Amino acid sequence: MNNFTYHNPTRIVFGKATVGHARKYLDPQKRVLLLFGGGSIKQNGTYEKVLGGLPTPPVLEFGGIEPNPEYETCMRAVEAAREAGIDFILAVGGGSVVDAAKFIAAAIPYRESDPWDILEKGAAVNAAIPLGTVLTLPGTGSEANPASVISRRARQKKLAFIHPRVQPAFSILDPETTYSLPVRQTVNGIVDAFTHVIEQYMTYPVDSPLQDRQAEAVLLTLIEEGPKAVAQPRDYNARANVMLAAMWALNGHLSCGVPGDWSTHMIGHELTAFFGIDHARTLAIVMPALLREQRKAKHAKLLQFARRVWGIATEDEGAAVEEGIAAMEAFFHGLGVETKLSAYEVPPDGTAPIVERFRAADARLGEHGDLDADRIEAVLRACA
Amino acid sequence: MNNFTYHNPTRIVFGKATVGHARKYLDPQKRVLLLFGGGSIKQNGTYEKVLGGLPTPPVLEFGGIEPNPEYETCMRAVEAAREAGIDFILAVGGGSVVDAAKFIAAAIPYRESDPWDILEKGAAVNAAIPLGTVLTLPGTGSEANPASVISRRARQKKLAFIHPRVQPAFSILDPETTYSLPVRQTVNGIVDAFTHVIEQYMTYPVDSPLQDRQAEAVLLTLIEEGPKAVAQPRDYNARANVMLAAMWALNGHLSCGVPGDWSTHMIGHELTAFFGIDHARTLAIVMPALLREQRKAKHAKLLQFARRVWGIATEDEGAAVEEGIAAMEAFFHGLGVETKLSAYEVPPDGTAPIVERFRAADARLGEHGDLDADRIEAVLRACA
Repeated sequence: MNNFTYHNPTRIVFGKATVGHARKYLDPQKRVLLLFGGGSIKQNGTYEKVLGGLPTPPVLEFGGIEPNPEYETCMRAVEAAREAGIDFILAVGGGSVVDAAKFIAAAIPYRESDPWDILEKGAAVNAAIPLGTVLTLPGTGSEANPASVISRRARQKKLAFIHPRVQPAFSILDPETTYSLPVRQTVNGIVDAFTHVIEQYMTYPVDSPLQDRQAEAVLLTLIEEGPKAVAQPRDYNARANVMLAAMWALNGHLSCGVPGDWSTHMIGHELTAFFGIDHARTLAIVMPALLREQRKAKHAKLLQFARRVWGIATEDEGAAVEEGIAAMEAFFHGLGVETKLSAYEVPPDGTAPIVERFRAADARLGEHGDLDADRIEAVLRACA
Repeated sequence: MNNFTYHNPTRIVFGKATVGHARKYLDPQKRVLLLFGGGSIKQNGTYEKVLGGLPTPPVLEFGGIEPNPEYETCMRAVEAAREAGIDFILAVGGGSVVDAAKFIAAAIPYRESDPWDILEKGAAVNAAIPLGTVLTLPGTGSEANPASVISRRARQKKLAFIHPRVQPAFSILDPETTYSLPVRQTVNGIVDAFTHVIEQYMTYPVDSPLQDRQAEAVLLTLIEEGPKAVAQPRDYNARANVMLAAMWALNGHLSCGVPGDWSTHMIGHELTAFFGIDHARTLAIVMPALLREQRKAKHAKLLQFARRVWGIATEDEGAAVEEGIAAMEAFFHGLGVETKLSAYEVPPDGTAPIVERFRAADARLGEHGDLDADRIEAVLRACA
């Protein structure tokens, strides 16, 4: 096992009818920015419940954070928040709203240069406004981690930053708020969370049996409970189990002491930046091809995945590995998620600019740094 | 799944050669009390490494915290710490030293009455000195939770208190510090951690598949790695895996959203208070008999335990349950831990005063509150 430090101070408030509990964790003196997305929270009653649970009304409301939150939108929120003297952000929504809240929290006090530098140049985050969340769409795990991903469509960029100062102080997870989610969003969340686990698990063994089984615990929960939540949107336990699994998938504990390989997300981000494909669907496209490309280096863990997660007993190890990857694809298909670029109307040669971008950056992805532009090209060709 | 809140702000610093890293997490202005146990840390080099890693020398050192830390000893430390103006406690040792540090941290600023009231009367902990730990004996999980158990031998009392103010700010877990542990202490830690998991897992199903598998992940790790650590005391990965598993066994996440049954600890504490038997060994004595006594109410989870943790395929469910409990006993025996009171020289009628104490308190233990003094008597008789 490798050395690590783990520190996750987010308070998780989980369960039925907790959606209006923010007042328990929020100082009434705070000048709150209520941040949300496209307005579904106003249709499904979540908005009123959250508002009714605040100790004092928000000083500012800002809606319209889009999926793959846009830098320009965030900067409008930053300007408004600075003017209103905001000192707490309550994000109500899914991972996009939470990610936007984190960037806005860091950008408000940032005066050194264009806040875009936080994303593109890794500029230091020396201060941030504290934030909390009311999560209404499980998947990204952003509710319990210090990471944020922001897009800038004008430049075809989708970039991440990670800083402990933007870790939520609390996150309220009320599974009932997810009852009204469109199937597409429910499914995206399940695929996103599943991928997060794979990216912390599917590398090479470092004698970390606990972390392996913790990862498998989350995968098995998503495999068993995900389809139930899709089939029965008001099945409380299925919704709760998916919501809890998605949080544990990316609250940092699975990466303690083990190597990671975030190639799927890195390549997937480019597919979203270039073609606007839903984040989760880019992962479902890239991951199977990527695992097949890396099947030698990841053999031991791919075999363990096949045996323990999918119960594949096939004696031949190579065949078992392929059956495991195929079972994962079948799981995505069963959720109605296509795993080929052609299904998203991307032409066969459409990914050439992405390969060129990786080539220009002299990319070396993967846990061994051996996934170069040529191999990324092979992966993307297999995704066609 | 039941509602829950989860908040664990302890920073875990884990790995090889981290024992001297306290300076990274400790303000040099702090007036530190260095708290430790019987002095083994001075023999095995841990003391020098910890001291060398402090930003400033400790203002006070206090050694001699005993296993099952004694109230009178803690109060001597409280007096000395008050006189020295201590404002941080660094506990170096096992769960006993950490538990003592927590009580001392709460008792130093407590002036309302005798600090014993914190334990016996649940007096409010309105303030506490912050603390950190360097763990040298995994098992209790105290390094990452807000609980403490203190004994008062003169009154044959062993009592617990739980308060977020005494949750460690950081805990340093360097597996190499455990290389020199006596086998008896290594084994005690494994059994203690195993029992902690069982007490959060072995109740009745509430549709919480993730928590179930997280619990099984810890159990399987202890079963696989515990004997390795005993057989090869300098096997780094075995030591690391046991240390990590013991932390996750009682850092609170396994109890999220599920019922618990802490009867084994409650009855075990009495065996320590009356007969001075090692804490972990009291658990190994009580738990098998207790699970057999509760086998109807716990049937579904006992069966799951037998099948998933011990791989028992026996079709007859009652037989499988018994085989699972027997496998657990065999695991304890394999570690050299006796599971009958007679092996600890307790006479057959020796537990009568314990039963009377539970009867006088009108005890109703267990997740259904149906384990009364008569049934506790039956359990203790089966432990003879």
